[in-house]
Amino acid sequence: MEITPGHLLKGIDSPADLKKLSREQLHKVCDELRQYIIDVVSVHGGHFAASLGVVELSVALHYIYNTPYDQLVWDVGHQAYGHKILTGRRDNFYTNRKYHGLSGFPKRGESEYDTFGVGHSSTSISAALGMAMAAKYKGETDRKSVAVIGDGAMTAGMAFEAMNHAGVADSDLLIILNDNCMSIDPNVGALKEYLTDISLSPTYNKLKDDVWKALGKLPVGKGFTRSMAHKVAESLKGMVSSSANLFEALKLRYFGPIDGHNITKLVDTLKDLREIPGPKILHIITVKGKGYSLAEKDQTKWHAPGLFDKITGEIVKKKFTAPQPPKYQDVFGHSIIELAEKNDKIMGVTPAMPSGSSLKFMMDKMPHRSFDVGICEQHAVTLSAGLATQGLRVFCNIYSSFMQRAFDQVVHDVAIQKLPVVLCLDRAGLVGEDGPTHHGAYDIAYFRCIPNMVISAPMNESELRNLMFTAQLESTTSPFVIRYPRGEGVMTNWQTPFEEIQIGKGRKIKDGEDVAILTFGHPGNFATSAIRELKTQGINPAHYDIRFVKPLDEELLHEVFAKFDKVITVEDGTIVGGFGSAILEFMVANEYRADVKMLGIPDRIVEHGTPKELHRECGYDAQGIAETVREMLKDKVRVSTFIGG
Amino acid sequence: MEITPGHLLKGIDSPADLKKLSREQLHKVCDELRQYIIDVVSVHGGHFAASLGVVELSVALHYIYNTPYDQLVWDVGHQAYGHKILTGRRDNFYTNRKYHGLSGFPKRGESEYDTFGVGHSSTSISAALGMAMAAKYKGETDRKSVAVIGDGAMTAGMAFEAMNHAGVADSDLLIILNDNCMSIDPNVGALKEYLTDISLSPTYNKLKDDVWKALGKLPVGKGFTRSMAHKVAESLKGMVSSSANLFEALKLRYFGPIDGHNITKLVDTLKDLREIPGPKILHIITVKGKGYSLAEKDQTKWHAPGLFDKITGEIVKKKFTAPQPPKYQDVFGHSIIELAEKNDKIMGVTPAMPSGSSLKFMMDKMPHRSFDVGICEQHAVTLSAGLATQGLRVFCNIYSSFMQRAFDQVVHDVAIQKLPVVLCLDRAGLVGEDGPTHHGAYDIAYFRCIPNMVISAPMNESELRNLMFTAQLESTTSPFVIRYPRGEGVMTNWQTPFEEIQIGKGRKIKDGEDVAILTFGHPGNFATSAIRELKTQGINPAHYDIRFVKPLDEELLHEVFAKFDKVITVEDGTIVGGFGSAILEFMVANEYRADVKMLGIPDRIVEHGTPKELHRECGYDAQGIAETVREMLKDKVRVSTFIGG
Repeated sequence: MEITPGHLLKGIDSPADLKKLSREQLHKVCDELRQYIIDVVSVHGGHFAASLGVVELSVALHYIYNTPYDQLVWDVGHQAYGHKILTGRRDNFYTNRKYHGLSGFPKRGESEYDTFGVGHSSTSISAALGMAMAAKYKGETDRKSVAVIGDGAMTAGMAFEAMNHAGVADSDLLIILNDNCMSIDPNVGALKEYLTDISLSPTYNKLKDDVWKALGKLPVGKGFTRSMAHKVAESLKGMVSSSANLFEALKLRYFGPIDGHNITKLVDTLKDLREIPGPKILHIITVKGKGYSLAEKDQTKWHAPGLFDKITGEIVKKKFTAPQPPKYQDVFGHSIIELAEKNDKIMGVTPAMPSGSSLKFMMDKMPHRSFDVGICEQHAVTLSAGLATQGLRVFCNIYSSFMQRAFDQVVHDVAIQKLPVVLCLDRAGLVGEDGPTHHGAYDIAYFRCIPNMVISAPMNESELRNLMFTAQLESTTSPFVIRYPRGEGVMTNWQTPFEEIQIGKGRKIKDGEDVAILTFGHPGNFATSAIRELKTQGINPAHYDIRFVKPLDEELLHEVFAKFDKVITVEDGTIVGGFGSAILEFMVANEYRADVKMLGIPDRIVEHGTPKELHRECGYDAQGIAETVREMLKDKVRVSTFIGG
Repeated sequence: MEITPGHLLKGIDSPADLKKLSREQLHKVCDELRQYIIDVVSVHGGHFAASLGVVELSVALHYIYNTPYDQLVWDVGHQAYGHKILTGRRDNFYTNRKYHGLSGFPKRGESEYDTFGVGHSSTSISAALGMAMAAKYKGETDRKSVAVIGDGAMTAGMAFEAMNHAGVADSDLLIILNDNCMSIDPNVGALKEYLTDISLSPTYNKLKDDVWKALGKLPVGKGFTRSMAHKVAESLKGMVSSSANLFEALKLRYFGPIDGHNITKLVDTLKDLREIPGPKILHIITVKGKGYSLAEKDQTKWHAPGLFDKITGEIVKKKFTAPQPPKYQDVFGHSIIELAEKNDKIMGVTPAMPSGSSLKFMMDKMPHRSFDVGICEQHAVTLSAGLATQGLRVFCNIYSSFMQRAFDQVVHDVAIQKLPVVLCLDRAGLVGEDGPTHHGAYDIAYFRCIPNMVISAPMNESELRNLMFTAQLESTTSPFVIRYPRGEGVMTNWQTPFEEIQIGKGRKIKDGEDVAILTFGHPGNFATSAIRELKTQGINPAHYDIRFVKPLDEELLHEVFAKFDKVITVEDGTIVGGFGSAILEFMVANEYRADVKMLGIPDRIVEHGTPKELHRECGYDAQGIAETVREMLKDKVRVSTFIGG
């Protein structure tokens, strides 16, 4: 289906075209851009509400700033659809997040306008500051750097680290705080309350008016020199700093708050700010989902709604005749409540992913025992450790990829102290359309090297429940990782009774001959499919679900290596250092010799696509496993032929 | 040598004994505690200046708070010597940081007073908040939690994350900001300037007086009820928040600043604050090294000075007749200047370790090209990536163990974007006396799983220089890790001319028979020693310095596995997932079969001791390598005997 952009938008192939338009026309550009995003995303999917919220900002930035020479860094980047459409990617925007299509996030390889690849929150200020410092060092005094960051992303410590440096680095950096009171879920924490306070404060509003009056008097244009700008800036600074807010405490000049949907005001403001040197912050107030009323009303739902009817707002759902397996995340969400109802030591912690992790079920039901701490993975883990010192059993649920932010905290605060925190790693493995920044590729490798850890992965929903049950038992005294993938499991009848699983015990799924397939977690199901196919070809491999990559089930592995000298390992993690490596380490430590083929995520950046496409590409889907089995048995076939012949 | 504590200190076996003393006697306790620290550390070594700075605070906290029921978390913890001495560890304090002795940091296994193990900065607020939230949940309303954190540690984002949560968590938490303007080096950043501003501001000092006057009027003692405290607190809050400082922006009640060396004031203040509910921060001003004038004057030198003559202040240096090899860090520090003089694209970044990394040499000489960004590893890496997008070649120097804090930033901002940032990992491997929190044990494993990385380790100083040279060449287009250990190298004549090393090329150190020893980095020297010893026994192993764990030198490894079916890998990193694993992955991918013994850091927490003691314990020193070679050849000896017999 062809989607036609509006009249003005059709003529914008790059920001140069945008700059040719009059200010008055920008309103229409915004309308058209917003409509185009609605048109395309409703049919092709993707993030939604965030980009609607910064339509005016995107237009204003490219109208005023000399991009890509001036450098724009979008934090997280799921709000950068307008930016992409305005910078030469309008016509293939429909490929957004599709296999071999545009990335859902800014990406350096995709466009010179994407100055910095993003995906995880709160990196923009550091990156843009680096750019600003480089410009200063190279004497590019006319070159500007801008970081656009949301109030949710501002809660991550990294943003604070960068501001602490920016305030004293004397570089030409503008931070735009896009304040919409939201992460994916509503933003939380003291900072959020503070931002609301200053937005509503009469002092601030008075001050704001003073600032804009002063700015209005500037002889902006030809006669306005750098030194004049500096003087004005200094006087503004005096005016503003008298009110001493949080950002000025960090030596950033604070401007705002202003309405981020008033395109005229935004353009005027940015034009002025572009001439004011030094580190500064502009606080704009926006509405996530702006212009699509359903999205404005339920911003979490419309963060990334999937396909929908843009007129009725009805979300397109796949229709199934039979009952479908639940998402792993929902099994987590329901099961933690069941467990917590019986064990009052259980608590839940999520860093800004209540909906995504389904901890929200517990937060709604047991608000005093489950917490969203903001986009603060580091704090989430150490807080959990602090709670664990008091005998509480915390389920700290963090996506595998986001857990990378808390690696040090897991080492120090959980593992070295051997505190029995339960780390639930949702979205482990290749996540699909979000691509390389969100793939949960590394966790097996980065956790496996840490002593004291128990690292498990369920092959299905029932296993997830049983691992959760086991993790919260008093007899479990180690840090306990449970990794599971994005999306659906395999059991429609998943609400099985809880059963303890002995830590470090795998299981034989089936006996077989010639070759053993060892799997870790959900890809065990790929092996099951492969074995079904191989059976029709008269090939009969054994299958073991190792279940714990740490500690390994040595008894089971002795059985495997005593019987087989051809072994295949399958995991949805990096082959380098992952589950397969653990098997190799066992093998050589026990002086076995076998041919081992390791399937998993290869040692390169895997781009976006559907999980199915990516599993295929990486070769650890059912087809890949079956091929590997046949390949390994080729010699055997050849040898038997030879002997027979 | 017996070191005798002062009269009062001798009677303090636990805080209960301290509490028996009168307030007037506390001055003397402080003097004696300070003297005891000086006496012991001068003879037995350890951190020094930090603990001297919090003598009064340590005494006051244990005098007022009901430890260990009330829970005290020391951030970083190298300042906790006073705390250790007061809590039952006075008489074995002389074993501090020695093999099997006391840990140099608080450690849960060591004492019930050490509520949380620390070592890396900025975890205290999260941990103490967890304790406070647990107390609230369990209804322990009389139980208090206190985090003591320095202004240096406050620059790390994690502290901000925790404060953002604490401000709205409604738990009974006191944060004590120990403001001495120092990290190990002088503290940097906007926050530091801000703290100086508020300490000097007449408004604040006026306010402070008002607050203390109000507090002075409180009917403290029996008649002072919780609700009264609440009222007073509310009025204080109103008074303080009128000045709206950074901490109040985060919804923490701010008190201070007060003189942290005035024991009477500290005791009075803490006594009052203990009764004020909710999250609050007390800002105290201290002098690092207080009471030892040389340390007050040069706080960086006296952070951890080694042994010294306490009277003259002369540092005890080992006396050598022959010239000694330099520290690896100094080779880095000198070499980056040499390189930067020729390549104006080179920049240097350190997160708060200018002295420790010796980047300070460059910062002194080229201040516009080298930066200390504070205890902000996350920011340091992404800032470096931002600079790299502009064509600059950044050497970002971070201790291996601290790099754990920036794992996600390396994945996203450096590796996925394939930016040629040079990551210099100082203190890689077992660091010795600092113990498990500082061992650089995991970096090989946690970096090896990331695509696009070049990961190297020099076997000596000349190699370090050549790797640095190679890393900054235009032709090098990948992220480039260079890991090297704490302490001295092996070459007295180290200032060799720069030579390019082909990326991914190892080298054969010597030919040999029966067994090949593959080493990565500095432990190659242990192998050299082992081979020297083995030679005298008629054993002649081959030795290869693999030099790059990624990409591997496949040509060289084919040579190894074609010739040898007994291989030993040696690394100063975790055996799990490390260099040895990389060799196994190569082996099975190329269908070689060999016996492989992997030497390195075992899969358990390795405690503190000298590097030599720890290498011995872990078995990858020269002796361990020699034993492994003999062990592997035992069968051969047996077999030849059998054949011969």
